[in-house]
Amino acid sequence: MSVTTAKGFRAAGVKAGLKSSGNHDLALVVNDGPLQIGAAVFTTNRCQANPILWSKEVIKDSQVQAIVLNSGGANCYTGPEGFQTTHATAELVAEKLGLNAGDVLVCSTGLIGEQLPREKVLAGVAAASEELSNDGGELASLAIMTTDSVPKRAEFKSPAGWSIGGMAKGAGMLAPGLATMLVVITTDAVIDAEFADEALRSATRVTFDRLDSDGCMSTNDQVTLMVSGASGLEPAPEDFRAALIFVCHNLAQQLLSDAEGSSHDIAIRVTNAATEADAVEVGRSVARNNLFKAAIYGNDPNWGRILAAVGVTSAAFDPYNIDVSINGISVSRFGQPDQSRDLVDLTAREVQIEISLNAGDAEATIYTNDLTHEYVEENSAYSS
Amino acid sequence: MSVTTAKGFRAAGVKAGLKSSGNHDLALVVNDGPLQIGAAVFTTNRCQANPILWSKEVIKDSQVQAIVLNSGGANCYTGPEGFQTTHATAELVAEKLGLNAGDVLVCSTGLIGEQLPREKVLAGVAAASEELSNDGGELASLAIMTTDSVPKRAEFKSPAGWSIGGMAKGAGMLAPGLATMLVVITTDAVIDAEFADEALRSATRVTFDRLDSDGCMSTNDQVTLMVSGASGLEPAPEDFRAALIFVCHNLAQQLLSDAEGSSHDIAIRVTNAATEADAVEVGRSVARNNLFKAAIYGNDPNWGRILAAVGVTSAAFDPYNIDVSINGISVSRFGQPDQSRDLVDLTAREVQIEISLNAGDAEATIYTNDLTHEYVEENSAYSS
Repeated sequence: MSVTTAKGFRAAGVKAGLKSSGNHDLALVVNDGPLQIGAAVFTTNRCQANPILWSKEVIKDSQVQAIVLNSGGANCYTGPEGFQTTHATAELVAEKLGLNAGDVLVCSTGLIGEQLPREKVLAGVAAASEELSNDGGELASLAIMTTDSVPKRAEFKSPAGWSIGGMAKGAGMLAPGLATMLVVITTDAVIDAEFADEALRSATRVTFDRLDSDGCMSTNDQVTLMVSGASGLEPAPEDFRAALIFVCHNLAQQLLSDAEGSSHDIAIRVTNAATEADAVEVGRSVARNNLFKAAIYGNDPNWGRILAAVGVTSAAFDPYNIDVSINGISVSRFGQPDQSRDLVDLTAREVQIEISLNAGDAEATIYTNDLTHEYVEENSAYSS
Repeated sequence: MSVTTAKGFRAAGVKAGLKSSGNHDLALVVNDGPLQIGAAVFTTNRCQANPILWSKEVIKDSQVQAIVLNSGGANCYTGPEGFQTTHATAELVAEKLGLNAGDVLVCSTGLIGEQLPREKVLAGVAAASEELSNDGGELASLAIMTTDSVPKRAEFKSPAGWSIGGMAKGAGMLAPGLATMLVVITTDAVIDAEFADEALRSATRVTFDRLDSDGCMSTNDQVTLMVSGASGLEPAPEDFRAALIFVCHNLAQQLLSDAEGSSHDIAIRVTNAATEADAVEVGRSVARNNLFKAAIYGNDPNWGRILAAVGVTSAAFDPYNIDVSINGISVSRFGQPDQSRDLVDLTAREVQIEISLNAGDAEATIYTNDLTHEYVEENSAYSS
């Protein structure tokens, strides 16, 4: 299962020498058609890496023939020399495979502010183009890992015969509207460019965009959907939408579970909000509160820190009519304690926070992690 | 030096049994006049503690005769019973000292969501009212400490003969517009209520409001200025303003240096911004970036994390024309590396980040700390 689950795609993952570990670090995914449609969602960080600047141009005509991704360097804040590296990478993919460079997406991930060794990248592209295969998705998913401890792959196979496959990487800088996350999703369903774009945007909005592991947004994020149409089957739009959300949600949960140094996966469900935007704002504020996150690490149901985080938002609510429960125990209602916090058991990895704003009927769930010694260790001891 | 530096004030600090440590936990400061003017700035968190709700009413007529502060419990999200505790506290101070309860401010700090033991608080008030003295400021400053490792006190004595004294507590939840910070500042200068309020607001705006240790805003913050006029001297407004900023800045720096588990004090100076608000937004975004903060803990000059944090703001700038320096080393200019990051020495506690947005001539400095193992430990192992 991976990007080669869907028919019409070949992939490869090779060791180009970009990672100090010597592991796989360059992936290539090629769409053999008959359709060669692409859609992509990019980081909203205004400080964007060179491959993002390049890929945004490529995607404009919704025509994508291949995507090349490297770990071991973000190629961000590397100036014109860095942009030329991205350009040369796309050019070499095109040359090796008989494609147009303008239809080749590029993604990079790793340390910001260091030049990628261009010759190594190009040698890796040459090697990968030789190794493309219909079951190369597994190696490709290894090649995009950075601090990930496991590769992330997902697939959906419809009974009708069309399918969606995907791979993702990301373990830190997981935040609003994507974050140090590279995702490639492929499908052999027959859909048009407009629907591909719209389905991808609506799926990422309720999946990857609701992950907020550490509040830090990457400069390099890109979620790409490639459409080969090789199944010859045209799914009902709602079926395709649901399947795409399934795959995105599955990959997002894998990112959450592998977030750097985390010991709890926390789902913050905000209910009875006036609007979905309010629910997202409240959930995100709690998800970013270091005191709350440290308390969960310590298995401490310190619900005051939840309310303190709710209180800094502009969402509609009466501050003294908010209900908070932790793992099913109602700890606060009507501005005062309800059941004893001692009843809350936080020993399991999964934590369910529910916050009812009593201001409407909208809801949203934000997924985050706790703040642990291991998070501090991983992010202080290594440049990444 | 403390709140009794200025003439016309008596203070006390007693052990009321609110803190499990058994240390001093209730402070009382009384203004003997002749003026009994007060001004206060409150947390902007919408989830506010009972003493905040009470004190906001008290301050409306700018008449303040006394302030009583306790550690060992926030009295927040404790409902009507908690409000009655605050009310009873002010009533007893008034009764013991022959004042109006409506002129008695109350502050609390500690765990949210637990009732304060009312009888202990009232016994503490009774004891404190017996122990008021002209040199009680030192004990008062001990009684407001929570996770603080040292008491915070400051003073300014004008050559002309008027003075300002102050005490503060705060070591975590240090964030936008105040945070788990209680501050009492006293002066014997002769100033009127309107000027007291305006001078306090403008001083806190450029001092306490620019501290952002951990991005978490408290439900209980209050900075209070009490004016006795006992020196009989009326300072030039600009002299008083400058002295008040001096005292606030001094206390703010003490809060920064004692922030929970920190190993670096980081000054993020944002220059050449289009507006001061832009400079503050950019500084605050960097100050709240956990990846940046963890890197500084690891003495890693990972400047990409600074730019990634700048990029999520809405400030005016060209993302590829931002200059970044760390401890005087220019690490990035024009969207690419400048001097080698290896030249940056981060072993000292003080860290200077300078970010030039090249978009105007406004500037601001935000002060923060690094994200350390000790921060995680203190905030996961203890409910506070």
